[in-house]
Amino acid sequence: MKEKILSLIEQGKYVETRNEIINMNVVDTARLFEEIDQQKLLIVFRILPKDLSSDVFTHMTSELQKYVIDSITDEEAVGILDNLFMDDVIDFLEEMPSNVVKRILKNTSDKTRMVINQFLNYPVDSAGSLMTIEYVDLKKEMTVKQAIQFIKQIGIDKETIDTCYVVNSNRILEGVISLRRLILNDESTVVKDIMETDVVSINTHDDREDVAGLFKKYNYYVMPVVDNENRLVGIITVDDILDVIDQETTEDLHKMAAMQPSEKEYLKTNNWTLAKYRIPWLFILMISATFTGGIITRYENALQSVMILASFIPMLMNTGGNSGSQSSTLIIRGLALGEIKPKDILKVLRKELCISGIVGIILSVVNFLVIYYIGKNDVLVALTVSITLFFTVVLSKVVGGSLPIIAKKLKLDPAIMAGPLITTIVDAVALIIYFTTATRLLGI
Amino acid sequence: MKEKILSLIEQGKYVETRNEIINMNVVDTARLFEEIDQQKLLIVFRILPKDLSSDVFTHMTSELQKYVIDSITDEEAVGILDNLFMDDVIDFLEEMPSNVVKRILKNTSDKTRMVINQFLNYPVDSAGSLMTIEYVDLKKEMTVKQAIQFIKQIGIDKETIDTCYVVNSNRILEGVISLRRLILNDESTVVKDIMETDVVSINTHDDREDVAGLFKKYNYYVMPVVDNENRLVGIITVDDILDVIDQETTEDLHKMAAMQPSEKEYLKTNNWTLAKYRIPWLFILMISATFTGGIITRYENALQSVMILASFIPMLMNTGGNSGSQSSTLIIRGLALGEIKPKDILKVLRKELCISGIVGIILSVVNFLVIYYIGKNDVLVALTVSITLFFTVVLSKVVGGSLPIIAKKLKLDPAIMAGPLITTIVDAVALIIYFTTATRLLGI
Repeated sequence: MKEKILSLIEQGKYVETRNEIINMNVVDTARLFEEIDQQKLLIVFRILPKDLSSDVFTHMTSELQKYVIDSITDEEAVGILDNLFMDDVIDFLEEMPSNVVKRILKNTSDKTRMVINQFLNYPVDSAGSLMTIEYVDLKKEMTVKQAIQFIKQIGIDKETIDTCYVVNSNRILEGVISLRRLILNDESTVVKDIMETDVVSINTHDDREDVAGLFKKYNYYVMPVVDNENRLVGIITVDDILDVIDQETTEDLHKMAAMQPSEKEYLKTNNWTLAKYRIPWLFILMISATFTGGIITRYENALQSVMILASFIPMLMNTGGNSGSQSSTLIIRGLALGEIKPKDILKVLRKELCISGIVGIILSVVNFLVIYYIGKNDVLVALTVSITLFFTVVLSKVVGGSLPIIAKKLKLDPAIMAGPLITTIVDAVALIIYFTTATRLLGI
Repeated sequence: MKEKILSLIEQGKYVETRNEIINMNVVDTARLFEEIDQQKLLIVFRILPKDLSSDVFTHMTSELQKYVIDSITDEEAVGILDNLFMDDVIDFLEEMPSNVVKRILKNTSDKTRMVINQFLNYPVDSAGSLMTIEYVDLKKEMTVKQAIQFIKQIGIDKETIDTCYVVNSNRILEGVISLRRLILNDESTVVKDIMETDVVSINTHDDREDVAGLFKKYNYYVMPVVDNENRLVGIITVDDILDVIDQETTEDLHKMAAMQPSEKEYLKTNNWTLAKYRIPWLFILMISATFTGGIITRYENALQSVMILASFIPMLMNTGGNSGSQSSTLIIRGLALGEIKPKDILKVLRKELCISGIVGIILSVVNFLVIYYIGKNDVLVALTVSITLFFTVVLSKVVGGSLPIIAKKLKLDPAIMAGPLITTIVDAVALIIYFTTATRLLGI
């Protein structure tokens, strides 16, 4: 299919190309467009039916959207955007440089411009910026027959008609009813009698991460968005939530790996920007680790008299870092999914103490055997390393388990309390334990 | 609301409790049930209308489901399960111990038992285990009127009627049509003329991560599942995909933090199990780090003559580990989202080389200034540390960027090539660079 269309375009057979594309899935068409020579792409794009070209436009990458908008007339641009749902228009405008946004706004009607401006004012992370205004609103006095008639009249322009909302004359949200329920009921039934009144709704200012949580909890495909007076202002559909979940996870992962989070794809971000995102935390952690090094300097004499002690430093530091990362990762993820609440901090501490005890004892015993029997080291050296290892594991798990929760309590993002930071903290304490134990046990 | 119901139950007013619960959202009811004394819970559960009790049952935690099933008669149990959709029955049975599964299967009809057994045989990670069989299938010769009539007759038991599938007499999938399109078309139109024939479908054996990818790509709420002969066997709805995405991410995160992945909630997993998941990788990494320590032993004499070198080891190891984690995290996430493909390996290597050059130079220069001017160290020591730092950053980013892609090429999970493993690899090489540079520059 793809090869066929590409060769049709190559031969300049645009009408045949058009007929093939009409039968294709719009998402696939948008992907295909990325592979076409941009001059020819414009020709193909222009001869598509208007509805279809708008649909394909929504699914293009923002780079390609920008190219198309820059290359067509203002009139054509407004034509495309008129056919889009409001959430797609907003998604598009948020990605465009301000001169494009201005050009678009200049050419739209006053009413549309007002709505767009309002949407662009919602914080990027809020429910308001996710919602669309193309929903069906019914009145509770309507019969099923009237409701279906109403849907038939206006339904064609709505993003979803599978779920309809019931509002009163002040636009206050009163109920919800599915098209399914309408169809399955008798024509003379009144909407009021079959609608559900226990509607779970979202406020325009709710954080989009919380919105995603509501979708996961209630398994809805669409949810209504209301303002502070409980007036229906929009709907959010689950397909946008899939993107939100991915974006939030990516953000957390970036923070956990000590980077400034970025929504942009790796391969499409330039190297200077990527470097800029990585340097600050590396810098902070580098300086912190310099202080950790100072601990070694303090114990220089002890180290000089038993040089073998130096060779266990990498193992102690790494194991501490890794066991701390394990705990902090589990807790950060649990907090993100809402499975762990800040009030669970004592439960978590108890669990981590117990787990780290088990893990610490097993690793320490194995470690002792390896150092003493295989490494043929002094028994007191083996003991020093193993004791330090035990306390390092316990400490790192307790710190790794509690810092994310404390961050959450302080309204900070738990994701920054991950491996890199935990490692730096634990390293310093591990070295202090190490040298304190060594000076006592080895009498140096 | 919640407090009111809890106090009604406390007072033994079960009929009033029932009336309150009928008006509640089922998800909220299921959460509420977790807080009720289990004896009383059974009474409340039994007096709910049968449909409602099944609905609430689906949303209970598996612990509570098990308690309820263990406490009621076989007949009651089958009654509940009969009212569930097949995907919920399978979710439930997959969580139950085998004696409960046997008890249920013994009491269901032959036909249901066959279907359940077939579903339980699909691999846990396959599309088959996610799908449900409650879909609407139309014939292409039907008129819109006939189709809607048909939906009205059978629709009440279907998980979704918003999307209907068109099959031929051999059950081969021929098209898809939304209830919305049926409603918006004329009653005499034939389904064949308005259905979409370009149906994106899923095979029962597709991996559930790929299924999630399809939902993200095409923005559907429901997708059809076919067998190898393209016969329609089930549907997958987007609400189950939300769970899949979360589970897959959690799995990746656990692997990235060097743990055996677990789907079970942290607070509900016992400490021995959690310890068991954490020990293997810690153990492997501990043993590897022991070898890294061996490098220090090899250069013991060099270290003994310039002891200050020891104090920079934590900083070099940490910065190397952190900069490697940054790269590997970005690449692992990019691979998981499909933004980076294995064929991009050279592009990634080029990018990481360039970025690590920028990051390495900046960190090294700052580091030199700190060690020389603030730390008042020998200029050659400062130079040794800074040169090592530069090469460590470059090396760690190249290793961190390429290992996940190589893992993917080798059909391994890229997530294991994360911070902990990268750190261990980079540490050893960093120490070798360090001591080689030191012996040359400092003439030791």
